[in-house]
Amino acid sequence: MSSKGKELPLDIDTRPITPTTGALWAVEKRMVRALLRALNDPPIAIRVWDGQTFYRGQSPPEVTLRVRDRRALWQLTADPDLYFGDAYSTGRIVVEGDLLNFVQLVSRSLPQSGGGWLSVLRSITSRAPRTNTLHRSRRNIHHHYDLSNKFYTLWLDSEYLQYTCAYFPTPAATLEQAQIAKLHHVCRKLGLKPGDEVVEAGCGWGGLGLFMAKHYGANVRAYNISHEQIVFATNRAKDMGVEDRVVYIEDDYRNISGTYDKFVSVGMLEHVGVANYKSLGHVIHRCLRESGCGLIHSIGRNRPRLMNAWIEKRIFPGAYPPTLKEMTEIFEGHDFSILDVENLRLHYAKTLEHWLERFNAVEGRVREMFDERFVKAWRLYLTGSISAFLLGELQLFQIVFNRGANNEFPLTREHLYQTHSSLNELHSK
Amino acid sequence: MSSKGKELPLDIDTRPITPTTGALWAVEKRMVRALLRALNDPPIAIRVWDGQTFYRGQSPPEVTLRVRDRRALWQLTADPDLYFGDAYSTGRIVVEGDLLNFVQLVSRSLPQSGGGWLSVLRSITSRAPRTNTLHRSRRNIHHHYDLSNKFYTLWLDSEYLQYTCAYFPTPAATLEQAQIAKLHHVCRKLGLKPGDEVVEAGCGWGGLGLFMAKHYGANVRAYNISHEQIVFATNRAKDMGVEDRVVYIEDDYRNISGTYDKFVSVGMLEHVGVANYKSLGHVIHRCLRESGCGLIHSIGRNRPRLMNAWIEKRIFPGAYPPTLKEMTEIFEGHDFSILDVENLRLHYAKTLEHWLERFNAVEGRVREMFDERFVKAWRLYLTGSISAFLLGELQLFQIVFNRGANNEFPLTREHLYQTHSSLNELHSK
Repeated sequence: MSSKGKELPLDIDTRPITPTTGALWAVEKRMVRALLRALNDPPIAIRVWDGQTFYRGQSPPEVTLRVRDRRALWQLTADPDLYFGDAYSTGRIVVEGDLLNFVQLVSRSLPQSGGGWLSVLRSITSRAPRTNTLHRSRRNIHHHYDLSNKFYTLWLDSEYLQYTCAYFPTPAATLEQAQIAKLHHVCRKLGLKPGDEVVEAGCGWGGLGLFMAKHYGANVRAYNISHEQIVFATNRAKDMGVEDRVVYIEDDYRNISGTYDKFVSVGMLEHVGVANYKSLGHVIHRCLRESGCGLIHSIGRNRPRLMNAWIEKRIFPGAYPPTLKEMTEIFEGHDFSILDVENLRLHYAKTLEHWLERFNAVEGRVREMFDERFVKAWRLYLTGSISAFLLGELQLFQIVFNRGANNEFPLTREHLYQTHSSLNELHSK
Repeated sequence: MSSKGKELPLDIDTRPITPTTGALWAVEKRMVRALLRALNDPPIAIRVWDGQTFYRGQSPPEVTLRVRDRRALWQLTADPDLYFGDAYSTGRIVVEGDLLNFVQLVSRSLPQSGGGWLSVLRSITSRAPRTNTLHRSRRNIHHHYDLSNKFYTLWLDSEYLQYTCAYFPTPAATLEQAQIAKLHHVCRKLGLKPGDEVVEAGCGWGGLGLFMAKHYGANVRAYNISHEQIVFATNRAKDMGVEDRVVYIEDDYRNISGTYDKFVSVGMLEHVGVANYKSLGHVIHRCLRESGCGLIHSIGRNRPRLMNAWIEKRIFPGAYPPTLKEMTEIFEGHDFSILDVENLRLHYAKTLEHWLERFNAVEGRVREMFDERFVKAWRLYLTGSISAFLLGELQLFQIVFNRGANNEFPLTREHLYQTHSSLNELHSK
């Protein structure tokens, strides 16, 4: 969503509202009813431009979708995956009532096979993924992450700027506590110790590397193709006095050089593309020492589904959340051994709830930085994602692996849970 | 290994030892050297029937493989996968030195791609799996598990007769403690509570069901196609006074009826066959309630490999340890969500070490029940399995799953570790 409102290839229908009469309206009325039917008649109403309201059943619907002009209706009918998001963010359709409630009502109602109108809300679905070449990866990542560091600092956790799923040791943990707990959880799963040499693939604003250096005494080389993030992270390492132990490199994960004790990647796999998993496995094989281990943290799915057109076009170009089966492509070619998989999808729903709440609180400032269309698009994206994680349409997999012949890993996972119960301790560490 | 020695289709070469001279011996000498080369020249010696010893390098080898007659050498060369085990158990080849050491030296030396002579020792590998029809499954399971309840009670843990991987909260736990800890670990992962209705697919001697009824107040229906095990388990349920809460059913998992809160299967998947995973998924889909969850515990692999001919023929007909990727076939067809995967391979190595130690301690009684050939075959099988788990050639995956849209699972896994640290508590519970 780097584009400002005026750059979106949409023309808003500025003509005066046309009357709902005549032959055209007879067709359109059938279109509205067909839309409700295609959604399995969820408890929502559709109100068109002149105030006429349509819904099934006797009880008044909980939420109403207002379609403000006929062009929006026609576009929704023609390419719902793409135009629901655009029409929502330009204000040509409006949800009256709670947006999350609306999204979940529609998602639950839709048939399990997915697809169809509003499937954007169902699960961030559909269409063939493109191959992420080095060049395209750079462009895609620029699109999303170079938006503006300032924008993300408005609503992410303040200390480590984690734009990935947090870990809530208890439901009441704050976002800051949960992101720190996530960083500890990752470091413990890796068995990180002082002096360990770590390579990180896709480092965001560099928070994990800073944390590993500061709290675990590790040496980190972190790769990222987002220029703004690399500059930001490098400055933070200097500010924190760990620039001798954390180096940020503006380059693609495919160009990682050297050998390391730990490989870690948090929230990059979604951007890699299944076609590149074997070569990611090869990179890890090349850079991980025999005694090493690794962790990959990624959004995933229970069954293969392609990305929704709108999200793919406006929010996350080139993104694809894989199934565990697809992820195994990384490991099976090189005798990596999967030691631990944890599904944190409820943690991502909670993380997104925190983000949305913070986003709403700074909405005015976001509108000043961008425009109303941007605010609406991001609200839809965050809300749709909460719904997808709550309804089990998206998963969050944390996978720990090592070399098949390496027995240097803990017998049990008990050590992961020894201090998480004390949030204060997490903070003071 | 139900067959007694005399039924094995082997004829031992009873002719007097032939001299190692002449043209035949010239060929055989090259065969011995070719065998060592095929193994990448591990630090072992091969001594043939007249005492001549072959090995590479200067230092004396740690262990020696004695080939006691020329027929053994020729058969090993012709079909090593099948005949190593047979020749070892009939005493026509002998390992002088520690058997586990020998197996590991050879396994480590063999190229990663596997195969070749002695690959039985490498990882219990090779050959195409057969389809396990209902009839064949019954015959296969009869072959291994109906051997004799008395035989297994000689060396398995005394209380719950677990012929599956134990869980060692600490390395020093006894086998009894570790099997009880495993049963707790499984019950906790399932979130088992009083009144829960559980279906178990493949229940062995019924230990898990007894444990669930006794310690968690669950109601269990347990399926197994081994007649002897069903009779044994039913009697134990009566003895323990839980026959109203645990029912053992002599039938195939494909015939499971009813609906349940929990699905559990510990050590059956190895016998199911990948071709049947989709239908296993269908069985689970049919019998698991919307709010339910399940656990599958199975030997696995990091990459696909077929079963060794000898193990498949003599020990475990129809067995195949799948990769995680292959296991996902069970889940992805029905929107099951994988919540947790734990790899317990080091626990299986420890379990097998306990079994082998106990087996050796009762060797004389096993010989009386069967014969020397049986004792040797089982020793090779247990030793080879220890090696395979220690070297990472076999894995043990515990997979927890639920329905994709079910949010009723714990936010963290901390509850799994709350009392495991206290072994006494495990016993008193």
